[in-house]
Amino acid sequence: MKITDTIAAISSAAGNSGIGIIRVSGDEAIEVVDKIFRPANKNKKLANVESHTVHYGHIMDGDKTLDQVLVIVMKNPHSYTGEDTVEIDCHGGMLILKKVLDLVLKNGARTAEPGEFTKRAFLNGRIDLSQAEAVMDLINSKNDFALNSSIEQLKGGVSDAIKDIRKDIIYHIAFIESALDDPEHISLDGYDEEITKMLNENINKISKLVNSFDNGRIMKEGIKTVILGKPNAGKSSLLNLMLGEDRAIVTDIEGTTRDTLEENINFNGLSLKIIDTAGIRDTEDLVERIGVNKAKEIAKEGDLIIYVVDGSRELDDNDREIIKLINDKQAIILVNKSDMDTVINIDELKKDSNRDVILFSAKNGEGMDQLEEEIRNMFYSGKVTYNDQVYITNARHKEALENALESLKQVKNSVDAGMPEDFYSIDLMDAYTDLGLIIGESVEDDLVNEIFSKFCMGK
Amino acid sequence: MKITDTIAAISSAAGNSGIGIIRVSGDEAIEVVDKIFRPANKNKKLANVESHTVHYGHIMDGDKTLDQVLVIVMKNPHSYTGEDTVEIDCHGGMLILKKVLDLVLKNGARTAEPGEFTKRAFLNGRIDLSQAEAVMDLINSKNDFALNSSIEQLKGGVSDAIKDIRKDIIYHIAFIESALDDPEHISLDGYDEEITKMLNENINKISKLVNSFDNGRIMKEGIKTVILGKPNAGKSSLLNLMLGEDRAIVTDIEGTTRDTLEENINFNGLSLKIIDTAGIRDTEDLVERIGVNKAKEIAKEGDLIIYVVDGSRELDDNDREIIKLINDKQAIILVNKSDMDTVINIDELKKDSNRDVILFSAKNGEGMDQLEEEIRNMFYSGKVTYNDQVYITNARHKEALENALESLKQVKNSVDAGMPEDFYSIDLMDAYTDLGLIIGESVEDDLVNEIFSKFCMGK
Repeated sequence: MKITDTIAAISSAAGNSGIGIIRVSGDEAIEVVDKIFRPANKNKKLANVESHTVHYGHIMDGDKTLDQVLVIVMKNPHSYTGEDTVEIDCHGGMLILKKVLDLVLKNGARTAEPGEFTKRAFLNGRIDLSQAEAVMDLINSKNDFALNSSIEQLKGGVSDAIKDIRKDIIYHIAFIESALDDPEHISLDGYDEEITKMLNENINKISKLVNSFDNGRIMKEGIKTVILGKPNAGKSSLLNLMLGEDRAIVTDIEGTTRDTLEENINFNGLSLKIIDTAGIRDTEDLVERIGVNKAKEIAKEGDLIIYVVDGSRELDDNDREIIKLINDKQAIILVNKSDMDTVINIDELKKDSNRDVILFSAKNGEGMDQLEEEIRNMFYSGKVTYNDQVYITNARHKEALENALESLKQVKNSVDAGMPEDFYSIDLMDAYTDLGLIIGESVEDDLVNEIFSKFCMGK
Repeated sequence: MKITDTIAAISSAAGNSGIGIIRVSGDEAIEVVDKIFRPANKNKKLANVESHTVHYGHIMDGDKTLDQVLVIVMKNPHSYTGEDTVEIDCHGGMLILKKVLDLVLKNGARTAEPGEFTKRAFLNGRIDLSQAEAVMDLINSKNDFALNSSIEQLKGGVSDAIKDIRKDIIYHIAFIESALDDPEHISLDGYDEEITKMLNENINKISKLVNSFDNGRIMKEGIKTVILGKPNAGKSSLLNLMLGEDRAIVTDIEGTTRDTLEENINFNGLSLKIIDTAGIRDTEDLVERIGVNKAKEIAKEGDLIIYVVDGSRELDDNDREIIKLINDKQAIILVNKSDMDTVINIDELKKDSNRDVILFSAKNGEGMDQLEEEIRNMFYSGKVTYNDQVYITNARHKEALENALESLKQVKNSVDAGMPEDFYSIDLMDAYTDLGLIIGESVEDDLVNEIFSKFCMGK
């Protein structure tokens, strides 16, 4: 391990609570905290304690007691960052935490940059890049799927899948290099068949991973849902009905979404991301005043449109505009106010929209089960359960996988076209490099190591 | 220790962050967490580990991994609550914390009531009542004084002062009882002088503690400051000037004061609590529309009125109303706009208000130093520093102290009036009981213990 400076930050959330945590990590973490910690057992020095032990005492600013604390010592390499790490469990008041942090900084640590503890974990080889990314995803998870896929990624699920594919690729790169270098001992006879088998297998694997992304994104972020409809069709009532009693959950995470125009709701276990622009919130502005262009834009972004039709009024031009809008979208049509006299011509609506409709009442809840079932059929298809499948939920990973896929297909083309073997290597190496980006591994020494360990080239 | 059920709660603040903590305490705390914790070292059971050790592993809901965590085990009686306690350091996402807490609850713990961990610490004799109160004060501290006084109280400063006084009192109660019971061996000759000495000393001590309250409250909560003045006198400019660059601190704790109409500001180290009603914020409404009655009410609440006079305009009836308002208050008069032509008759203002004035310019900062000095002189008087003096900052403590003071004075009256000694005991016991309320100690066995240990009554 290289020598690193010592960083510190408040690692618990801002706000007053029972416990707050200051985390200190780096070569001098223990030394820094030793300077300001007066243990209950006065003869104790943190420098001498066992790793993974907890110590009670006071944080002292000179002779002044700042707080009663527990101090947790974790020695390198057995800590999150892989460095010496000390966690100070303070009382959870903002002022105390700030004071204790200031004191830690005054005694030799510097303020950690955002994400720097995790970055150090990565740099010290405790976790790879996809695992580092999973930490933030995990913390920001808003539903079970996001939680599950990020914990799987953190545990190395994505990394393992990528590493398996890379292992296959690097084997073949090394084999080709070795065979070209030492044709007397290593023969390429029948090799095209062998590499084709490998390519097919891994193209298939990568395709599956790429395809998991859309489902993954939808389940991680929720189904982007746009509710359209004329004024007074019952859009707000629908939203309230869907929110049901889980409204508190939305409030719990409100702070995290305050800066977006979208709202995450939990509709009987379905995670929906209602697009909540002012325009959509007040469709009167949208359709009649700002016009159909705005709706078009918003509808374009959605995974799902729920079109609420007022069953107690005739279809009008506004409706016909909306029907056009949802033409090529995943959409569900609710004919609302089924509890009142139905004035609308349902057959005409079905014919114009070329879709089935759900008779619905925001007033008495009729049609809600059907709505839920329809969304499940559209997006979950019974097949997406929280099983052991690896999901790609990160756009960066998807892009790298797509590039790797392209390169492997290119190798296949070269094989099919009867190109010489050294042509394969360039594209194989591109695929290998792209996949390496996902887990943050550079190519550098991999090839040399593989070649030395497997084919003993140059002996 | 009696058998207690096991409680659990999220002990860190709500919000997404690096680390979040679930605290579990009670007889089955370790057993409960053992059920859901899969340590990296599979053979490890938390039930068998040493106290004050930290263990890495996963929280498992059946076969499903919920989070990677550190688990901290603290065994009774060496924990905050005095019970077996387990802290689970999770990733700090609200959803994860909620899931892990739910799992802990499903496995045998129940949700902790607010403050229940601290209540248990008290019930188990880890801390006394005044220390338990200090925990909340400490967490909610908004300035250095509040932090210092609450940490002193938590360390037992208040308790020790109270216990010293109680020790004196119980000695005398026991002595009187014993002497009356066993006059042959214990003489009351010259006793009046002895008890008078004790009473004088402790009346003095308690008075000091009671008197520390007002200073203590001001320094803990800040000086309640009401800025009065006519429209456009420069009140907002003054506030902005006083806020200076410490505005961020106000923002830091904004969430905690959102539900009050008061704002805490830090003015060069002076902690002010600006009373921030809509009325005061917009004095145009206050003086001209809502009228002087509203201002009167608000001014009554303040420790300090800062009256901002517009020096560029003649004194008018509004000013004269304000001058009446501040008549019997701690008040500072700023003649603002000293950078412009002074139109106001300063001598008249001084004479009418019977006070000195500070020539002030919110524009160029003239007079700010004087304002600061004046506030320091009024409230800090050079004598209130963060020394070892014990401050009473809790209204409940103050009330108990006042009651005890009253009782001790009553004893003194009885002594002076030559009443028989058994009259003293009732009031002494009242004082003893009232002081006991501060630290949460009941009288019950104390007297018996004291009598047995000191005077061997009934042998």
